[in-house]
Amino acid sequence: MSYFDAASAAPLHPVARQAFQASLDEGWADPARLYREGRRARMLLDAAREAAAEAVDCRPDELVFTSSGTRAVHSGIAGALAGRRRVGRHLIVSAVEHSSVLHSADVHEAGGGAVTQVGVDRGGVVTAAAYGAALRGDTALACLQSANHEVGSEQPVGAVAELCREAGVPLLVDAAQSLGWGRVEGDWSLLTASAHKWGGPSGVGLLVVRKGVRFAAQGPVDERESGRAAGFENLPAIVAAAASLRAVRAEAAQEAIRLRELTERIRARVPELVSDVEVVGDPVRRLPGIVTFSCLYVDGETLLHELDRAGFSVSSGSSCTSSTLTPSHVLKAMGVLSEGNVRVSLPLGTPEEDVDRFLAVLPGAVAAVREKLGAPAPATIVREDALVVDALGKRCPIPVIELAKVIGEVPVGGTVRVLSDDEAARLDIPAWCEMRGQRYVGEEPADRGTAYLVRRVS
Amino acid sequence: MSYFDAASAAPLHPVARQAFQASLDEGWADPARLYREGRRARMLLDAAREAAAEAVDCRPDELVFTSSGTRAVHSGIAGALAGRRRVGRHLIVSAVEHSSVLHSADVHEAGGGAVTQVGVDRGGVVTAAAYGAALRGDTALACLQSANHEVGSEQPVGAVAELCREAGVPLLVDAAQSLGWGRVEGDWSLLTASAHKWGGPSGVGLLVVRKGVRFAAQGPVDERESGRAAGFENLPAIVAAAASLRAVRAEAAQEAIRLRELTERIRARVPELVSDVEVVGDPVRRLPGIVTFSCLYVDGETLLHELDRAGFSVSSGSSCTSSTLTPSHVLKAMGVLSEGNVRVSLPLGTPEEDVDRFLAVLPGAVAAVREKLGAPAPATIVREDALVVDALGKRCPIPVIELAKVIGEVPVGGTVRVLSDDEAARLDIPAWCEMRGQRYVGEEPADRGTAYLVRRVS
Repeated sequence: MSYFDAASAAPLHPVARQAFQASLDEGWADPARLYREGRRARMLLDAAREAAAEAVDCRPDELVFTSSGTRAVHSGIAGALAGRRRVGRHLIVSAVEHSSVLHSADVHEAGGGAVTQVGVDRGGVVTAAAYGAALRGDTALACLQSANHEVGSEQPVGAVAELCREAGVPLLVDAAQSLGWGRVEGDWSLLTASAHKWGGPSGVGLLVVRKGVRFAAQGPVDERESGRAAGFENLPAIVAAAASLRAVRAEAAQEAIRLRELTERIRARVPELVSDVEVVGDPVRRLPGIVTFSCLYVDGETLLHELDRAGFSVSSGSSCTSSTLTPSHVLKAMGVLSEGNVRVSLPLGTPEEDVDRFLAVLPGAVAAVREKLGAPAPATIVREDALVVDALGKRCPIPVIELAKVIGEVPVGGTVRVLSDDEAARLDIPAWCEMRGQRYVGEEPADRGTAYLVRRVS
Repeated sequence: MSYFDAASAAPLHPVARQAFQASLDEGWADPARLYREGRRARMLLDAAREAAAEAVDCRPDELVFTSSGTRAVHSGIAGALAGRRRVGRHLIVSAVEHSSVLHSADVHEAGGGAVTQVGVDRGGVVTAAAYGAALRGDTALACLQSANHEVGSEQPVGAVAELCREAGVPLLVDAAQSLGWGRVEGDWSLLTASAHKWGGPSGVGLLVVRKGVRFAAQGPVDERESGRAAGFENLPAIVAAAASLRAVRAEAAQEAIRLRELTERIRARVPELVSDVEVVGDPVRRLPGIVTFSCLYVDGETLLHELDRAGFSVSSGSSCTSSTLTPSHVLKAMGVLSEGNVRVSLPLGTPEEDVDRFLAVLPGAVAAVREKLGAPAPATIVREDALVVDALGKRCPIPVIELAKVIGEVPVGGTVRVLSDDEAARLDIPAWCEMRGQRYVGEEPADRGTAYLVRRVS
């Protein structure tokens, strides 16, 4: 098995395992107690906080351990917004943030707050200028990830932090994907991260609030962790998290070069090996270990299943994977193809041979899925001036497959209408046009579903 | 070292350690993923949920894993109150709940909700009748612990649940202290617990919401754990928690008899070995492993320190321990002495010899503290008809020590005024009167602090 989904959860780092086992004996007591076992637990907790703070480059008393990265984001956003309620209730987020940020924004909006979502380019990257333009007199907080979790693109955090600092607005950086690779540069105000993304254990997140940042923790009072993270400290896991962050950082520079070479290989080779593929995400400013591509005429869940059978564990932002029926909001915001989407995120130490084996297996896996899906007869009827493809009731990627089948029957300059009630079509039909050099005219409501208009230009 | 503070955090059970180590290899991946590692994690999570549900006696889909017992309480109360907002905004809690419950009630009250606190008797126990009387047409939720965390008294959960059921009000039971010992009887609606109290790891709590109970999870949306516990699942710890609950339960019946005999020994022997001691908590309806007593003329922190030096780790609800300056709200609600308070909570497997050694060491430790504190000369002056003890600026237990020193100078029928600005005096002077057969007349404001009036009757 090759596990290529480190961006979801990295396998436990050997140092994390050692630290875990060592602290199971020393770190189970309540660190608030005065007796021997309590003092020992307190010492472990203090040492872990210092190690984590050094890795983040903050003061130990600015950093608290939460029960997850998600919880760090929820608490960080809620506390920062409440701390600046007098200034206003405007929140800025990018359109490609992790769902924990976007769901926090939803709650804020439902409670009467205002939210501005800053868009991204086709590489998934925001511009500092767009953040600058979004800043208002009543802006309480801005949030920006250090790097994107689905496509690996790095965001211009330093430049955005500078604009926010000038405007007197705190910037919260979700560093979940990047903290293992290095410090987050720039003059940010709050930072969140998640240990199981860097090879630490699950059950530990970080929330950093710089001194001087107004912060009012929400929810019931709890005196632990400076009042910012309720509940008994998850101590052996905290020790393991801090130890593994330090260990991962020691390997980071060298491993970044190696993994970047491997993902570069995937970026270059996949379009040569598989037809109708779009590699997505910024080609230069990106994390070392993540590469994402989408394959036309393929459904994500079936492709994942094929790759799993071939021994590869990858993830997908397609609409037809897991429990979700809508495509990834990241791919949507980027305006790229979502069907047949595959995210490869390599754990530290991934052998080169595994990547080569993946490249050897991928074309056959895609071809198998395409063959399975290619069969349905096109349900086309000629009506008035336009060819109509009736893909109602059919799920991604069938609407695009049907479109591709009939485009040859349309005279150059002619139009085809694709009727679809699958939400993914809204994203994938324009993306197909972009990839195939056809013109996407637009959509209009139909009796059932939506009609997507495509003009053949070549 | 003898660790006698299992009610704060129990040492990790050997089964928890085994399960932990086994699942570190199998349980780090995201259980929502479709590939092999994800399916394996999902199977571990499902199996842990089934085991925990069996121990609780609920359906697996009624139980979610939270990041701590505190978090389970916070989420459970907030969700249940929100789910019944249409009925009303009245919440009932007992006066001796865990701080996580009382702080949740504070938040509810600050947000415009109404809270009724049901009082307890001198044993720390509520009556079902008092809960019945507190129920109103607009009561959204009632909360009652299964047993008290400071004095070990068991609450009449079954009877209270029955009254709540009749009134159509859900009852949330905080079972943190008792779940390792057995199921919570009665027809409760919600239940919370904490793994590190039964010998499981930290970082895991349980929240059970019976089918049919209206529940609206608060905070940002997160699809994991039925939307009731945000954040990536703390899987190896969850597996260890479920496995250790099952293991602890298998030993519970036999170990309960053994530990009850040991705490009974402490209850009986301490008043024989140490003068001026009050053993608190219900003598019959109590948890097997917890016993609590208070010693007059002793300050809790110094006594804990003496006992720690002698090799015993215990806890205290006195005002002068750790970071707190107010006595435990539990002892306050019971109206018992808080000074020199000691809680002994025995972990599973505590050897009999350790308890005997504790009983051998305790009298000397108390005597040493009393000697240290007994020195100050009484600052008494005779004024008008009453003797006045000026204990202003002195902390517990000095005011009571001063009172005890002068009571002999007061003629029977005469009165002594104790001036004190220490909050603990409000609790401890009446408690001293109760213990020494003197009459507590009441308090009145003084130029500085408060004057406490005591009449000598014997």
